[in-house]
Amino acid sequence: MTERTAIPKGVRVYPPAEAAQRRAVEEVILSVFRRWGFREVITPTFEFLETFTAGGGDRAAERMDKFVDRQTGRLLALRADLTPQVARLVATTLRNHPLPLRLSYAASVFRYEEAQAARQREFVQLGVELIGLDRPEADAEMVAMAVEGCQAVGLGEFQIDVGQVEYFRGLLTALAPPEETARRLVSTVRRKDAVELELLLAETPGPDGVKAALAALPTLYGGTDILDRAAALAVGVPRCQEALANLRAVLDVLVQYELADRVIVDLGEARALEYHNGVAFGTFVKGLGFQLSSGGRYDRLLGHFGYPCPATGFAFDLDKILMALEAEGRLPEDRGPDFLIIDFNPDKRHALRLARILRGQGYAVARDIIRRDLQGSLEYCRTARVARAIVLGAPGVPPDAFLLREVATGAEARYGLDAFCDGVQRGERPWERA
Amino acid sequence: MTERTAIPKGVRVYPPAEAAQRRAVEEVILSVFRRWGFREVITPTFEFLETFTAGGGDRAAERMDKFVDRQTGRLLALRADLTPQVARLVATTLRNHPLPLRLSYAASVFRYEEAQAARQREFVQLGVELIGLDRPEADAEMVAMAVEGCQAVGLGEFQIDVGQVEYFRGLLTALAPPEETARRLVSTVRRKDAVELELLLAETPGPDGVKAALAALPTLYGGTDILDRAAALAVGVPRCQEALANLRAVLDVLVQYELADRVIVDLGEARALEYHNGVAFGTFVKGLGFQLSSGGRYDRLLGHFGYPCPATGFAFDLDKILMALEAEGRLPEDRGPDFLIIDFNPDKRHALRLARILRGQGYAVARDIIRRDLQGSLEYCRTARVARAIVLGAPGVPPDAFLLREVATGAEARYGLDAFCDGVQRGERPWERA
Repeated sequence: MTERTAIPKGVRVYPPAEAAQRRAVEEVILSVFRRWGFREVITPTFEFLETFTAGGGDRAAERMDKFVDRQTGRLLALRADLTPQVARLVATTLRNHPLPLRLSYAASVFRYEEAQAARQREFVQLGVELIGLDRPEADAEMVAMAVEGCQAVGLGEFQIDVGQVEYFRGLLTALAPPEETARRLVSTVRRKDAVELELLLAETPGPDGVKAALAALPTLYGGTDILDRAAALAVGVPRCQEALANLRAVLDVLVQYELADRVIVDLGEARALEYHNGVAFGTFVKGLGFQLSSGGRYDRLLGHFGYPCPATGFAFDLDKILMALEAEGRLPEDRGPDFLIIDFNPDKRHALRLARILRGQGYAVARDIIRRDLQGSLEYCRTARVARAIVLGAPGVPPDAFLLREVATGAEARYGLDAFCDGVQRGERPWERA
Repeated sequence: MTERTAIPKGVRVYPPAEAAQRRAVEEVILSVFRRWGFREVITPTFEFLETFTAGGGDRAAERMDKFVDRQTGRLLALRADLTPQVARLVATTLRNHPLPLRLSYAASVFRYEEAQAARQREFVQLGVELIGLDRPEADAEMVAMAVEGCQAVGLGEFQIDVGQVEYFRGLLTALAPPEETARRLVSTVRRKDAVELELLLAETPGPDGVKAALAALPTLYGGTDILDRAAALAVGVPRCQEALANLRAVLDVLVQYELADRVIVDLGEARALEYHNGVAFGTFVKGLGFQLSSGGRYDRLLGHFGYPCPATGFAFDLDKILMALEAEGRLPEDRGPDFLIIDFNPDKRHALRLARILRGQGYAVARDIIRRDLQGSLEYCRTARVARAIVLGAPGVPPDAFLLREVATGAEARYGLDAFCDGVQRGERPWERA
């Protein structure tokens, strides 16, 4: 039996209360995407492995769940990221569609971390891709939508860390360390480990100015004045100066959006994916050590699918939003159906009519078609969080009337069937007058 | 490049127009489920293989996409069916929840058919499970919801074929043929192949009455009078008589639902899954050779997870609903965003204000942040199916005004920014007065 009821580590089953929270947050975020003019696309759950490694990324391939395609013998992988799938769609089916394209998605992604076996292996991403625009306004639109999404779900405290991956890459190229050192530098900066970074730089030959700039990376975090410090540190490295000019232009647009106070400049942010190449950003909540959303510019990915074209995008991690809402005590309360119809009449037509009319107005109405006494049914209402019980055929109540009981308070009133149905059909809520 | 853009056979990518149709139909069906008091649950995309084979079913296991769990070395399978997952959830997490449980889901399932390699391997099921009730009202609720779902999405022509799998199983047990013959009989009845069925029965020993009843199965299709014929054919087989009495009780409830004219009795319907054991049904549209939905009673499945409990359920196949809607010419028309804001002003604040206010009222508003002339932007509106273009900073228009153009007709009018924004915020649609 244990065999059969076991669930693989890292995946989860969500009972109604949690599923409702997930659905509610998802709908709010998708509504933000829709209102910004983004249109949903749907991609397959698995693909040939090559689709996901197009942007470079053997590291990514290692973390994917793979299986052999019985038709071709080639390796299939569960999607770890929708951006390559959307890029492929743009480069093929939508190739003749005029640009820009504003596309969105809501889907499960799958990642397996050998080292952290307890981590989630399936999680939901809600994301957008803005394709065909290289202007700072496009990057700013992504950041503005990340802010609006957080506000729309009701988060109070959050900030967007905005970086530019080319600043770090410019310094790295100017240092030109051996490949192994470069890999260690990336990993150290990613972990923001200032001490190890300094040790590593001390044993690496190269221009002192560049090494000083790299060593300063973990401190290049704060208001827009950071940009001036970063520019002074990277004097003589054109790639860094261009990155800073681009970042400044994006921040200028965010001032027009009146979002300057939500944004922190973070040039030490190196968590971007391997295909990112410009402004990249993440959403953080104080006290929680994870990103609610992340994304950035990826101008070279579409070229891998044969359609060179600038692009930017980002995605919310649904589980992380829920964790942040929980930390703020803002998760919506669990609610069951609006009505349970308890029917002691042998003729079921009155009950069916009531159910039909209430459902027609959008109410959630379950019928209690189990044999039990009234107390049992009312107890069920409490545990299943039903808001109101409707009782037909109770002692002393004629067939053309019924009792309606507020489950939370126990308040009960009697209604005539016809008058109640007419009222509900006119959009009234007769139980609120009681 | 072909390598990278290739898509595995049997899976699909849905661009915005198709994704919108899918999302619209899904929302309608989920709304029906919600209004009948069903609450959504979410299950993992993959599980240990044993979860899916709990109800018996090596045939099912063959058709699943499987891979090895790196943690345990056990076989994982992409879900081919949500019912076992929901059953497991009920038997574990929800075990102490009072019955009945009304649960629903919307999810991709995966099936690989060796013989039909061109067939879809990933498709979406929208389903419900009603757990804890063995009464005919529960079966009737499933059929009634299948009808209401079809009506809600706008299908005109459809019918529900209702059978009872125990009738056929009762005959099969009474015949008691060798195992191989039994397998062939099931397969032949499933294909409704009357000729082969007769040949097969001719070479099988057994009571003539039972053989006559089995031979008649493909003809036991039609109105409720079929029940009498079926009863006469299976005289002396109690399991068949019980099945017919149960089916009759379910049909009686459907008469109270006023759904008798939607229902066809079909005792030759043997397409039910291996775990089904009572009333089973499928939804058909004339001229289309597939089921839009299917389901039935499965009273023994939960016992396999250690929680014996009656249950019934059914699921819509989203792709099949869309095919039926297409055949009836009822697929919704493709529509892009409600507005594109084209802005020639250097100061972007007016455009941002307009966008914010329109989005606040739920409109889909994209901003045209690409450098091109007005003709190029209007051409984009046409191909991207944008309903209306808003033009700021056009020659001769002051900064506190703009032009609004209906893309389909080319009709254009000028609005003052403040008055327009105030009107929209009051819920007006100023462009409809033009």
